[in-house]
This record gives sequence, structure tokens and C-alpha cells, in this order.
Amino acid sequence: MTKTQEPVITSVTDLPTSEAKWVTLQKISYIDQTGTQRTWEVASRKTRARSAGIDAVAMGNVLLHPSRPASTLLVLQFRPPLDAYTVEWPAGLIDEGETAEQAAVREFREETGYECEVVEVSPAQAVDPGLSSANMKMVMVEVRLGEGDELPQQRLQDGEHITRVVVPLAELYERLVAYSQMERTVVSAKLFHFAAGMHFAGTQGARYGL
Amino acid sequence: MTKTQEPVITSVTDLPTSEAKWVTLQKISYIDQTGTQRTWEVASRKTRARSAGIDAVAMGNVLLHPSRPASTLLVLQFRPPLDAYTVEWPAGLIDEGETAEQAAVREFREETGYECEVVEVSPAQAVDPGLSSANMKMVMVEVRLGEGDELPQQRLQDGEHITRVVVPLAELYERLVAYSQMERTVVSAKLFHFAAGMHFAGTQGARYGL
Repeated sequence: MTKTQEPVITSVTDLPTSEAKWVTLQKISYIDQTGTQRTWEVASRKTRARSAGIDAVAMGNVLLHPSRPASTLLVLQFRPPLDAYTVEWPAGLIDEGETAEQAAVREFREETGYECEVVEVSPAQAVDPGLSSANMKMVMVEVRLGEGDELPQQRLQDGEHITRVVVPLAELYERLVAYSQMERTVVSAKLFHFAAGMHFAGTQGARYGL
Repeated sequence: MTKTQEPVITSVTDLPTSEAKWVTLQKISYIDQTGTQRTWEVASRKTRARSAGIDAVAMGNVLLHPSRPASTLLVLQFRPPLDAYTVEWPAGLIDEGETAEQAAVREFREETGYECEVVEVSPAQAVDPGLSSANMKMVMVEVRLGEGDELPQQRLQDGEHITRVVVPLAELYERLVAYSQMERTVVSAKLFHFAAGMHFAGTQGARYGL
């Protein structure tokens, strides 16, 4: 990333629903389990590809190197909604006509420069069920590196500024906690929860009989 | 839950930003790392308590019983934004003046009926960084049960219909995959990622030297 300056938010204004291109607000009227008529306010992406029926993919990933510990590649980028740099796994929206696997390989190449192999595709998951209709699949991918491989070129779109960080899997949880303590930095809940699950199994597994 | 009928969505209409009570749409103008002026559309909750600066808590939880395996309590509820039943850990919004710990204990009592002990509070996490400003903390809690304890009474608010399910921790991942295959049912991404992290550590830990 050519980082010549810190990003600055210059204004935040109410956005009329009719003018929004990427997100919309809707009011859902529904009849609940008791037969009562109720309403719910929801934010939705306007970009969901009909073919997949899923908004996005996030790529849990393992980098396998002949002589280094198994690692994972994280991306750091300024996210205006948080006014902060986020720490996430590479992720992106699924294009029309793409499968989740295809979107995963394409977005992983664009954000990281690496060609990856898909290991597993999760079921659809609800990103923020009380607030939005957003859903996603986690796609686990592997990258096999040679001894001397260096970080490849990214293929970023205009306006994307993404920093890549490689973290040994065994240190992932501690590193995310450390990132969370840095100024203007926040970890994605999905990534943090995955790492917390790994950490939980490793530290509490014996106690809880896992 | 007194479930007399399946919930039905009767209408979905565009909601003008000016009429929304819980959610809002905003346009953020910002100057990026290269000095370029850009905009971003964001959905935000209108309910964030200023005192905590965090929207919500989700309660990772362990039920400890004298003779049963360590388990976790999940909640199933109809979520209008997804038009589906979601499988989640108990969660809720932080009230003004509350800490994350206090909100966790209160919400856990309301949704599950159990008194819990807070074990750990995570850093703030970004729920859906590309779409919304929503953030949350995961609060790990423990409940110590007696031999004959039964599920206690919930203290639900009007309109809440929440079914509780107790799942052995060792079976969590497989159970979430099975829920994902059920009709009109979707698992929360945070819960799924935690379980996937546990599963990953358990099944891939030896291979990846964790």
C-alpha cells in the first residue's frame, strides 16, 4: 500500500434511501408466532447476486511453507464505517454468475496475489441477524509456497489499499488481541471468533473434555 | 416458546431514512491514503449507548453440570431480516450506563433464565466492516448447574420468542452444520466461526503444528 497519509473522514450525512446505491433500508411487516402483526427495520445490500443468493465470501486461509510454521494471511484496510483500520481475512462480494468457490479464488488473487486451492465451503451464515439481511460463506483455502517465495503482486481495484500480514496460526489469537489494542484498529468479529474458538479448544479443551 | 404458527412476512417496503427508528443510512465522505476524496455508504444502529461505545454483546457460554458433558446454550429465534430462524449465542444491545459485563449478565438472564459468571470480555469487534458501523464484544460466561437443575424460566420482553437448545461443546460444530441444512434455518456467522475455529484446532491442529 502506498500510504501517503492517514485517511480522514470529512463529513457524515444522512443518506436518503432513494439515493443509496449499495445499501438500502427496508421495513418488514410480519406476523409472529402468536399471530401478532409486527414490524422490523432492516439494512440490506443492493448487490446480492441472484445466482448465488449469498452476498459475500471470506477466505479463511492457510499458507504452507517448506520451512516456516503454518500461517494465515490477514488484510488490514481503512474501513470508513468504523473510521478505523480493520483486521480481516480476505473477503469480497460474489459477482453475478459466480459460485462461492469462484468468488473466493478471484478475490483471494486480487487482494493477496496468491493462487489458492479451495479446501472447504461453509454453509450460508447470517452476518448480523438483528440488523441486516447480509449473509456469507466462509471458504477455507490453502496456498502452497516454495522455499524462496516472496509476497506476490496484488491486483487491487481503484481505491483499494490493502496491507497484507502473515501470522503463524499458533499465534493468531494473541496477535488479534494485540491488534485490538492498537490505536484506530479493530478486528473483524468473524475472524476474532474463529481465532477465539481455536484458542478456546487449545486452552480449555482438557478442562471441558473436548 | 408458545409457537402457535410459523411467522409470515406480509410486506417489505423501502423505509425512508427519516422515518427509521433503529437503523440509519449515512454517506461518509473521506480522504483516502492517496489524498483522493471518496464516499462510502454505511448502515448504523441508532441505539448505541454513549457510555459503552459498543452496540452489543454476545455471550459465549459454558454450562457445567456434575454428570453431563460441558455444554453451551444456543438460542433459536425468528429473525425477520433473514426470513429465517437463526441459531445464535444469546446476545443483546448494551443499555445506556451499562458495561459490557452488566449487559451480558442481564441479557443472559432474560434470554436463558440462568445466572452466569463472566469469565472473559473480548476487545471490541467489527460485525460487518464493509456495510455497517456495528460493533460488539464477546463475553464468555459460565453457568454451574446442580445435578437436578432444569431449564429455568426465561424473562422475555413482549414480542420475543426464543427457543433454548443445550449442545455438548464437543458436538457444537457438527450440530451447527446440521442446523444449516434445516429448512428456513441459518446459523449466525460469529457462532459458526467460533465453532469452526474449535473444529479446526481439533482436526487440523496436528497437521499444522498448533
